[in-house]
Amino acid sequence: MASFSVIGLIGHLHNERATYSLKRLISFLQKRNVDFVLEQETAGLLVDDPMFHAAHKVVDVDEMGELCDLVIVVGGDGSLLRGARALAKHNVPLLGVNRGRLGFLTDIMPEDIEIKVDEVLSGKYTLEERFLLDMSIKHLGETVATGEALNEVVLHPGQFVHMLQYEIYVDGYFVTTQSSDGIIVSTPTGSTAYSLSGGGPLLHPKLDAIALVPMNPHTLSSRPMVVAGDSHIMIRVGEHSRAIPMISCDGHNHFEMTMGDEIHISKKPDLLKLLHPAEYNFYERCRTKLGWGGHLLDN
Amino acid sequence: MASFSVIGLIGHLHNERATYSLKRLISFLQKRNVDFVLEQETAGLLVDDPMFHAAHKVVDVDEMGELCDLVIVVGGDGSLLRGARALAKHNVPLLGVNRGRLGFLTDIMPEDIEIKVDEVLSGKYTLEERFLLDMSIKHLGETVATGEALNEVVLHPGQFVHMLQYEIYVDGYFVTTQSSDGIIVSTPTGSTAYSLSGGGPLLHPKLDAIALVPMNPHTLSSRPMVVAGDSHIMIRVGEHSRAIPMISCDGHNHFEMTMGDEIHISKKPDLLKLLHPAEYNFYERCRTKLGWGGHLLDN
Amino acid sequence: MASFSVIGLIGHLHNERATYSLKRLISFLQKRNVDFVLEQETAGLLVDDPMFHAAHKVVDVDEMGELCDLVIVVGGDGSLLRGARALAKHNVPLLGVNRGRLGFLTDIMPEDIEIKVDEVLSGKYTLEERFLLDMSIKHLGETVATGEALNEVVLHPGQFVHMLQYEIYVDGYFVTTQSSDGIIVSTPTGSTAYSLSGGGPLLHPKLDAIALVPMNPHTLSSRPMVVAGDSHIMIRVGEHSRAIPMISCDGHNHFEMTMGDEIHISKKPDLLKLLHPAEYNFYERCRTKLGWGGHLLDN
Amino acid sequence: MASFSVIGLIGHLHNERATYSLKRLISFLQKRNVDFVLEQETAGLLVDDPMFHAAHKVVDVDEMGELCDLVIVVGGDGSLLRGARALAKHNVPLLGVNRGRLGFLTDIMPEDIEIKVDEVLSGKYTLEERFLLDMSIKHLGETVATGEALNEVVLHPGQFVHMLQYEIYVDGYFVTTQSSDGIIVSTPTGSTAYSLSGGGPLLHPKLDAIALVPMNPHTLSSRPMVVAGDSHIMIRVGEHSRAIPMISCDGHNHFEMTMGDEIHISKKPDLLKLLHPAEYNFYERCRTKLGWGGHLLDN
Repeated sequence: MASFSVIGLIGHLHNERATYSLKRLISFLQKRNVDFVLEQETAGLLVDDPMFHAAHKVVDVDEMGELCDLVIVVGGDGSLLRGARALAKHNVPLLGVNRGRLGFLTDIMPEDIEIKVDEVLSGKYTLEERFLLDMSIKHLGETVATGEALNEVVLHPGQFVHMLQYEIYVDGYFVTTQSSDGIIVSTPTGSTAYSLSGGGPLLHPKLDAIALVPMNPHTLSSRPMVVAGDSHIMIRVGEHSRAIPMISCDGHNHFEMTMGDEIHISKKPDLLKLLHPAEYNFYERCRTKLGWGGHLLDN
Repeated sequence: MASFSVIGLIGHLHNERATYSLKRLISFLQKRNVDFVLEQETAGLLVDDPMFHAAHKVVDVDEMGELCDLVIVVGGDGSLLRGARALAKHNVPLLGVNRGRLGFLTDIMPEDIEIKVDEVLSGKYTLEERFLLDMSIKHLGETVATGEALNEVVLHPGQFVHMLQYEIYVDGYFVTTQSSDGIIVSTPTGSTAYSLSGGGPLLHPKLDAIALVPMNPHTLSSRPMVVAGDSHIMIRVGEHSRAIPMISCDGHNHFEMTMGDEIHISKKPDLLKLLHPAEYNFYERCRTKLGWGGHLLDN
Repeated sequence: MASFSVIGLIGHLHNERATYSLKRLISFLQKRNVDFVLEQETAGLLVDDPMFHAAHKVVDVDEMGELCDLVIVVGGDGSLLRGARALAKHNVPLLGVNRGRLGFLTDIMPEDIEIKVDEVLSGKYTLEERFLLDMSIKHLGETVATGEALNEVVLHPGQFVHMLQYEIYVDGYFVTTQSSDGIIVSTPTGSTAYSLSGGGPLLHPKLDAIALVPMNPHTLSSRPMVVAGDSHIMIRVGEHSRAIPMISCDGHNHFEMTMGDEIHISKKPDLLKLLHPAEYNFYERCRTKLGWGGHLLDN
Repeated sequence: MASFSVIGLIGHLHNERATYSLKRLISFLQKRNVDFVLEQETAGLLVDDPMFHAAHKVVDVDEMGELCDLVIVVGGDGSLLRGARALAKHNVPLLGVNRGRLGFLTDIMPEDIEIKVDEVLSGKYTLEERFLLDMSIKHLGETVATGEALNEVVLHPGQFVHMLQYEIYVDGYFVTTQSSDGIIVSTPTGSTAYSLSGGGPLLHPKLDAIALVPMNPHTLSSRPMVVAGDSHIMIRVGEHSRAIPMISCDGHNHFEMTMGDEIHISKKPDLLKLLHPAEYNFYERCRTKLGWGGHLLDN
């Protein structure tokens, strides 16, 4: 891949550590004489800082997608999810810098910014393609809402302690009915997040598959199920007395539904290009973040 | 136990089947010349029916607790939970008649009302004592809300997909911190309900124990835990960004909380007296309702 | 697909019901004037029966694979697993007739033999390709044993209540160390069998994936993991005091191992061609066999 | 409790670290002028050591139970389990010294021997009573084997990958039939050991309860169940084709059984007196050994 000429920066600056990481990154880019543009909202939070003026330009996310050949997101995994959803339709690769705590998606620690970002800019990186989910809600046959998710689409009862009933279809085939607190439809990327808490299996990032994980199922025979990545999943909301069925995408955008509404979920055609430092290793990340055991001799 | 002289009737008449069960029951009591009183709300729904006038009296739940030496609840398990919470402080035993579907607490099927209720009135029954949980919320050291639960007390984040953090203490000892969708604190009675969906163990009704079941725990090492029935459980709500921590008792009465609030849970001194037909068998109910296997020779 | 000219028959005749199913099948094939050959062992158990002489020929499994363009297996899912392992290297499709109890792989009930087998012979069927696993054990770098599995390869401690330690590698990458009763490496076909009992996810038959499911893991953070179907899995056996590490393929062929031995597992290049009656539906089978709920309106 | 005048020492000296712990302990006792006796097998392994002669006497375990008013076990939790089974019928309290790794039962680290054992000998300790299980196997109505367990009794199929069928009865009531790899019947003490790996709940040591945990159950509705501590549990072994049903107590003493044999399990009347250093805290141990989260402010 050619070198990166214009770099976009997105930072969720809700705490000092994120701001620190972003400033350290900008400082490094200035020293290296790399052109960068700032995302609008990020720029707003930085406007009183002398560094602000180093930015080539302030743009909205769509312009950034057009203009840049690399976008660096500063924040937690949630920030990268947001960046990924916003930039999915553009072909620009993303790189994640965290704010002091290693994420599954944000690899670079603040103290390693100079070394690691330099390596990436010099072409030493690992490129991974991750898929997102396209979600649409149909009410009486008409699409009333759409959304995208890099981690998971969740059907839930809005308020807690209110059970839902729903029917699941895959590729037009009726699968089963479940009574539960809802269902998580997860990508491999999401399989280390909420889906794992719900008892779902860990899916390797390269696996072309989607997991369906019922939450607190009332029926004891319900189990997590994994289907091929090109499957079309449809969930039809059943009768519900006190619950308000809702859909969330990556924990955001809660759409309300009524009985009979259909949720259609399938793989988004545009893939996310995710950059990692060259030595990135998914399993190492599992050991660090999930507390998995290291080599036997280390024990 | 002496025979029952005044019987209270409570029915949740939200559907025809419940109304049918109640009328069949009243009809039977009239034929058997048994005095009965109607709970206020139940009476309101029956007021246009000729049967209404057969009632000795219309009373509120507290009067019913004072006046009656047996209360029959018509409805699902949820109706019996409600009756139990309302009557717990009185010493009156409860009997459950369902509306066509066997419950864990409502044993008598509508078609068996004459035979089974007659048996109970004739002194052929099984008496079980079940305990409830007393719950109180303390804000800055002051009690701001209280509740009771026969099944479970649930700490949850109000809206879904918003994780909670909380500390658990048992008998003054710090147990652990959990990050999860919340926690279910369940009695043995509740162990066949929501707690079971959440992955909790089944507790025999005679077991003097309380189960703590985290929901979709973020920490993979979190496990359901069972403590002695006389334990004092305290849960302190941690920091939470978007969630509004809430407490529900048996799925009702959602109290809101803020960071630092404490939930205190312990066994209620007054026990619920639950009557069953003489041949009642808890394990038979598990086989029927949970799909557990019968004798090997039956297979 | 062209019609089937020579049909092979394999039956595990360990009980009367299997024998009944096989005889009914032969009887039907005779009436329909279809040539069939009998597998050696099957023939041995049928030799005193007048039907025996209807067979065109008695052959061993390898000849059968060469000679036939369809093999019908009569028995349970275990019989079909055995047939599949034996015939995997030949390109002949398999059809399963059960002995009175529906299997995941043996679709046709004895009483439907005439109708369903006739349909299949007339070209009305569903063809599915399922993959097997190739397993080899390396001791000091040399292959000392090999095996094949349609359902699963299991590493276990031989005798029970003796824990194992082992390292997992996928595609050359170190994944983690586990202490457990062993590990199940399952195909999608096996995901409805032992793997499901061990807490593994259900994998759709079309999914190109392999599940790794630790059994009773000592480490609480261990979780089932699913990797791409073309992954190379290597498990290295660690120190073990009282256990004798062993490998089973589809529950058979227990190979013993010692510390440091490596188990290599990957997808077998030859796929199994599995025939089903035309109306076959995987999810319908899950509902029937796993007790999953049907349509909401049916409830 | 009065001070301890004669102390018994048991050590499982299979590794250097255990021997080191024992010698350090003896050295301390000598300095403190405390009389001690050595268990026979322990003495045998120490016979060439000058320290050996410091022992007041060499005795078998039963004599030790009669003679001593405190027994210190040096080793892992397994060593303490063994000591507890052997000394259960005597009324002597046990104290556990580990060999460098904290156990659930062996509290004192080698480097803390002088301080902690001194405290205990000076009367500063926590006394806990733990119960054991009595197990007996009946064949055609006659008792053919008995055993004791502080952690768990396990019914298993001897060799792996061979399913068992069995019926469970509690207090004479039929509970259910299960098809599985076997079942773990666990005390609260055992609930942090094998039972936890099998998906069982954690039971607080003070809880008077027994957990029944099926291993890899074939039936998806099977769940761990907890019954009162005074329950009589009976498991009747069903038909089994290739498996040899076996019973283990705390992982030892594998008794073989045949179809129809009954396993009877109930609480042993004699309780184990377990001593801990004064500041012992069960939940602290869970946090350390299970990786549970500490106080929120520590995070």
